[in-house]
Amino acid sequence: MRAVVIDDGALRWEERADPVPGDTELLVGVRAAGLNGADMLQRRGGYPSPPGVPPDVPGLELAGEVLAVGRQVTRFSPGDRVMGIVGGGGQAERCLIDEAHALSVPERLDWAEAGGFPETFCTAFDALFSQASLGPGERLLVTGAAGGVGTAAVQLAHVAGSVVVASVRDEERRASLGALGADEVIGPDEIPSHGPYDVVLELVGAASFPSALDALATGGRIVVIGIGSGGQVQCNLGQLMALRARLSGSTLRARDRTAKASVVEGVRRHVLPNVAAGRLRVPVCETFALADAERAYERFEGGRKLGKIVLVAP
Amino acid sequence: MRAVVIDDGALRWEERADPVPGDTELLVGVRAAGLNGADMLQRRGGYPSPPGVPPDVPGLELAGEVLAVGRQVTRFSPGDRVMGIVGGGGQAERCLIDEAHALSVPERLDWAEAGGFPETFCTAFDALFSQASLGPGERLLVTGAAGGVGTAAVQLAHVAGSVVVASVRDEERRASLGALGADEVIGPDEIPSHGPYDVVLELVGAASFPSALDALATGGRIVVIGIGSGGQVQCNLGQLMALRARLSGSTLRARDRTAKASVVEGVRRHVLPNVAAGRLRVPVCETFALADAERAYERFEGGRKLGKIVLVAP
Repeated sequence: MRAVVIDDGALRWEERADPVPGDTELLVGVRAAGLNGADMLQRRGGYPSPPGVPPDVPGLELAGEVLAVGRQVTRFSPGDRVMGIVGGGGQAERCLIDEAHALSVPERLDWAEAGGFPETFCTAFDALFSQASLGPGERLLVTGAAGGVGTAAVQLAHVAGSVVVASVRDEERRASLGALGADEVIGPDEIPSHGPYDVVLELVGAASFPSALDALATGGRIVVIGIGSGGQVQCNLGQLMALRARLSGSTLRARDRTAKASVVEGVRRHVLPNVAAGRLRVPVCETFALADAERAYERFEGGRKLGKIVLVAP
Repeated sequence: MRAVVIDDGALRWEERADPVPGDTELLVGVRAAGLNGADMLQRRGGYPSPPGVPPDVPGLELAGEVLAVGRQVTRFSPGDRVMGIVGGGGQAERCLIDEAHALSVPERLDWAEAGGFPETFCTAFDALFSQASLGPGERLLVTGAAGGVGTAAVQLAHVAGSVVVASVRDEERRASLGALGADEVIGPDEIPSHGPYDVVLELVGAASFPSALDALATGGRIVVIGIGSGGQVQCNLGQLMALRARLSGSTLRARDRTAKASVVEGVRRHVLPNVAAGRLRVPVCETFALADAERAYERFEGGRKLGKIVLVAP
């Protein structure tokens, strides 16, 4: 097979040995693989793969057809359309995925949508509901809402009955966020005047964190998932006490097999039925051929995208 | 009745009208009322009372005999020995307490112990178990562990099967913390070398927070309850993400009636049986007469106490 390979910061399309599935794994012929912020970090050497995955092949999510299964696999068979999360290695012609981290692809999703779904929706679902315990009627702020996780979070919170405020820097993407279910779409400067927020999904970091914290409601929760603008912030512990606030950070990739399986199972139960019903969609901003990863990464880092950049098999 | 009254930073022992119980309230003849850090703040004008309590009579916890009950009170009768939490007004000869915030005094506790129990144990119980979800076998750091909340937390966590590391500045109080159930008693400088901690109960603030955060385990939780050494800290959001850590602040006083009732009910179910069994005790450092509040506050602010300073009726 061929794979996207990180070679001292460059991305090459190189021959690699076909992976062989372990007992609980599926060998998947990759049809599409979404890009995530973590890939950009990994390419620059800043976010090494966890043990057990190829250290130099990026890609945390993929969709494709099952080619072969390990001895203990019970839920999938060769020929099934699957999508799922991996610790790395997704941006290749073939990839292994643990069956506990795989989902059936709903009819409504084409390959590019399915390839951009798993990491993004798992991350947003886990952050909003497991970490922040977002409930119906609560007011949610999503900062940097136009990216993959942001567009997933806006939709998930809207479907679950929350009041969604989406902040995004440039104006041209605001209408699209309204169409995805945001009740109010604002610029970063407007964060203070649109609070108080019961929950904040922080996808930007230091640039928006102080104003989000200042606009937090009593009993509010902030979950930090992205820190593209930096991670060092001043925090007033007295303010956290007075608000009885909760601040947490999270990543999906480094969790153990069981913890990831639990997130995927939550998405299967609570998210996929709404995909099947047409209430959630995967906004794909642009697709590139797998062999053309270098250009796709450039597009990702260029910003001003709405939704996902996805690599697709020819 | 007479009450401790804050008058421009001074404490006076003054005549006040007897309070009249509302429908769900008990009128209690106060036998003992514990001091808390919040009283020191309130005396300096920094922590105003919530609505509905006397603004200038301090005191968040008390014990005494029920003198009269409101029309809807069902659980207590005149003559009962009760203890409980109030939004203020506890440091007086008579005080009103909502029956949902009152507990029967276990046989084993004398009046001074009962008067120093409620706020302290409710705060520690809520922080450790409701906020931080501390579980058996988990490693807990309690900073500034020698005070009222600290000695309560050390005991509660020990009884619940956690491994307790207690940090305290001066050496002479370390043996007593071991006797209360701390597995390791350390100085603040030793916080980094005794981690990683699954849970940190931060009772000191800025002076210990950075080393506690650096020594946090993956999936760790920090609950900030006290910030006597200051509240402004630098926080690295990337570190929170990498650790999947949770940071929360909390106070008991400002919560609504129902939320407080839920904490008190938790203490009744999970803490009082262990008081009755002799597995938990209330370390009373020193008692002062109610009329002598000025000296008691001085003693409180002087530090180097183990457990509670309690005002008692003559």
